[in-house]
Amino acid sequence: MGRDYNRGMKTPETYNNITVPTLILDEAKCRRNIARMAAKARANGVRFRPHFKTHQSADVGAWFRDEGVSAITASSLRMASYFADHGWSDITVGVPVNIREIDLINALAARIELGVLVDSLESVDFLSAHVRAPISVWIEVEAGYPRTGVMWEHPEDAIAIAERLQGSERLRLRGLLTHAGHLYAAHGAAEVERGYRLVVERMTSVQTALAAAGFNGLEISIGDTPSTSIVSDLGTVDEIRPGNFVYYDVMQSTIGSCTTDDIAVAVACPVISKNRYRQQVAIYAGSVHLSRDFLTDQEGTRSFGLVALPTDHGWSEPLSGAYVVSVAQEQSVVALDAETWQQLAIGDVLMVLPVHSCLTADLLKEIVTLEGKSLPMLQLSAL
Amino acid sequence: MGRDYNRGMKTPETYNNITVPTLILDEAKCRRNIARMAAKARANGVRFRPHFKTHQSADVGAWFRDEGVSAITASSLRMASYFADHGWSDITVGVPVNIREIDLINALAARIELGVLVDSLESVDFLSAHVRAPISVWIEVEAGYPRTGVMWEHPEDAIAIAERLQGSERLRLRGLLTHAGHLYAAHGAAEVERGYRLVVERMTSVQTALAAAGFNGLEISIGDTPSTSIVSDLGTVDEIRPGNFVYYDVMQSTIGSCTTDDIAVAVACPVISKNRYRQQVAIYAGSVHLSRDFLTDQEGTRSFGLVALPTDHGWSEPLSGAYVVSVAQEQSVVALDAETWQQLAIGDVLMVLPVHSCLTADLLKEIVTLEGKSLPMLQLSAL
Repeated sequence: MGRDYNRGMKTPETYNNITVPTLILDEAKCRRNIARMAAKARANGVRFRPHFKTHQSADVGAWFRDEGVSAITASSLRMASYFADHGWSDITVGVPVNIREIDLINALAARIELGVLVDSLESVDFLSAHVRAPISVWIEVEAGYPRTGVMWEHPEDAIAIAERLQGSERLRLRGLLTHAGHLYAAHGAAEVERGYRLVVERMTSVQTALAAAGFNGLEISIGDTPSTSIVSDLGTVDEIRPGNFVYYDVMQSTIGSCTTDDIAVAVACPVISKNRYRQQVAIYAGSVHLSRDFLTDQEGTRSFGLVALPTDHGWSEPLSGAYVVSVAQEQSVVALDAETWQQLAIGDVLMVLPVHSCLTADLLKEIVTLEGKSLPMLQLSAL
Repeated sequence: MGRDYNRGMKTPETYNNITVPTLILDEAKCRRNIARMAAKARANGVRFRPHFKTHQSADVGAWFRDEGVSAITASSLRMASYFADHGWSDITVGVPVNIREIDLINALAARIELGVLVDSLESVDFLSAHVRAPISVWIEVEAGYPRTGVMWEHPEDAIAIAERLQGSERLRLRGLLTHAGHLYAAHGAAEVERGYRLVVERMTSVQTALAAAGFNGLEISIGDTPSTSIVSDLGTVDEIRPGNFVYYDVMQSTIGSCTTDDIAVAVACPVISKNRYRQQVAIYAGSVHLSRDFLTDQEGTRSFGLVALPTDHGWSEPLSGAYVVSVAQEQSVVALDAETWQQLAIGDVLMVLPVHSCLTADLLKEIVTLEGKSLPMLQLSAL
């Protein structure tokens, strides 16, 4: 293209080929994140059923097999279908079951061990009447995060569901499942640890109530990246389902789940504009690439991502004081220190460490490794 | 599927076929929005160059032709390429030019009348050296919204660019272009009107400075949905480039750009959970469908969308007091009044009016009309 981009910086060939916002994956960091979480699950004697909603990629999924993983979580039936196509035979769909997709439920149940979540008698009745192959059922429990699930304060609702399931031929009750989403708002390891203990206590109380009602041997499944990253002794749970840890992101490093060096993805973004009066640059990459997720600091300033420079081994540590100030649909404004601003030219590439990697990966729909290999992801439009 | 959904509601057949979150388009409302904006442009004697980044659809684009539109705006070179494939021959890309896509720039310049934005001498120099066919160049001006463009307070920067362009054989300076993005934060028509007048005044001052430097006949292009919707007399501008008005959304109805009845899209979302203690439901549709854009009311409460019921002609007015409380990756929590909560069953469909329709449409990547016709959109992964 007749241009020497990122002058004076030693960068891999991959960056020279960047023309549009591109999700760059550091495979070594990603594999390290996977190995560390797998080791923690083994040390705690719990089943590791990672959530694949973050990477949505058959290739990245295969790296989990190398760590002995055989059971996974998906965030939709269509995602479960994609991973079933890629050889995964034990998949839990981690949201309350969508009965409008009963045809896909039956198609999946016929070929894999499918797990679904229920939190109502209505869903149980519908599934009992329409499911044509055995499926595993988890009762979702709300144990601190106000979203879905029977409420832990009302174990009688869980017991009513368990009783209703007894009448079903194909629905097998496996256990109690929760997502402690409120821990994503925690500040620091101590708060995550306290929150996690409370969630386990609440889940155990529901388990005990069910046992008292004659439902013994029910498992407890729990899944969020902050607690599974931070807490050493996971206590009396049977299964963990973290997902985000595969890449981590700025939000997780702020919580204390990881260091910024653990963040395995960054978005390579061409510089398209420089404002010398504000020492800012604009990059090609906006809300349709990075997402609109942001973090707010103590002064109320929003950050839509941290910023690093490309290096010959990937990207630098986040630049001090640099961050994504605002995002529009296809462009963003980045604040920089004076020296970096001076150094950058239009056409150079900046690396954005995403606030929330799940959304950024979902938006970009393709992963490129540092070595330049393209890893396809689930494409709903292709189904 | 053995189930009578949305009991007692008269709904089009389209809703019975919904299995996953689906962007539903009311074609009549959409065509009305297009016709109204086209009429305003005609009344003001300005060129109507609509931004196609909101709908990203060749089919919706064709409805603009019925209103005499022949020139459009795109938010990326790839989007311009898609619309060039669908017969559009005069396209401005409304972000500072990304020089890393010089091959695509040349491919487009060879087959359509391509317009690009510059705000730096660097970009001009690069284009002068590498462009192989004539292109139109607009100097982007920042006139109130801190993003990109030479700053209106520094017309000498615009003059320097104009002078540099004189030396180029293929780059033809067309005019001055701005996006008044700050008007999206305005409250009410009066504030939008005042903000718009100020922007036009600033653009005119840059135009005057350029004329004094010998650059006469430069056009002024302006483009945002709030001002073009609200302001009757658009003043001394030559071109308008609004985009969002094609669908409008809750944000625009809050600003005063439209009524909620003008909102032409809603997301059909299956109900997957009911919480009787909080009178909430959960729907299948999360941040990867609706986006994370929200509005904050005076008490600081966030809303990720308004909520309506399906009807035989589309959807109802937004339900009073009902809104999307929180969004996770693939599910959201909706607050409802007691009567609606009672009426809804798991498996029913709720309609979410999006906060920001540009992002919701971009995420869903497919449009379904009330009559059940599927309208494809730009798929970057297919390029």
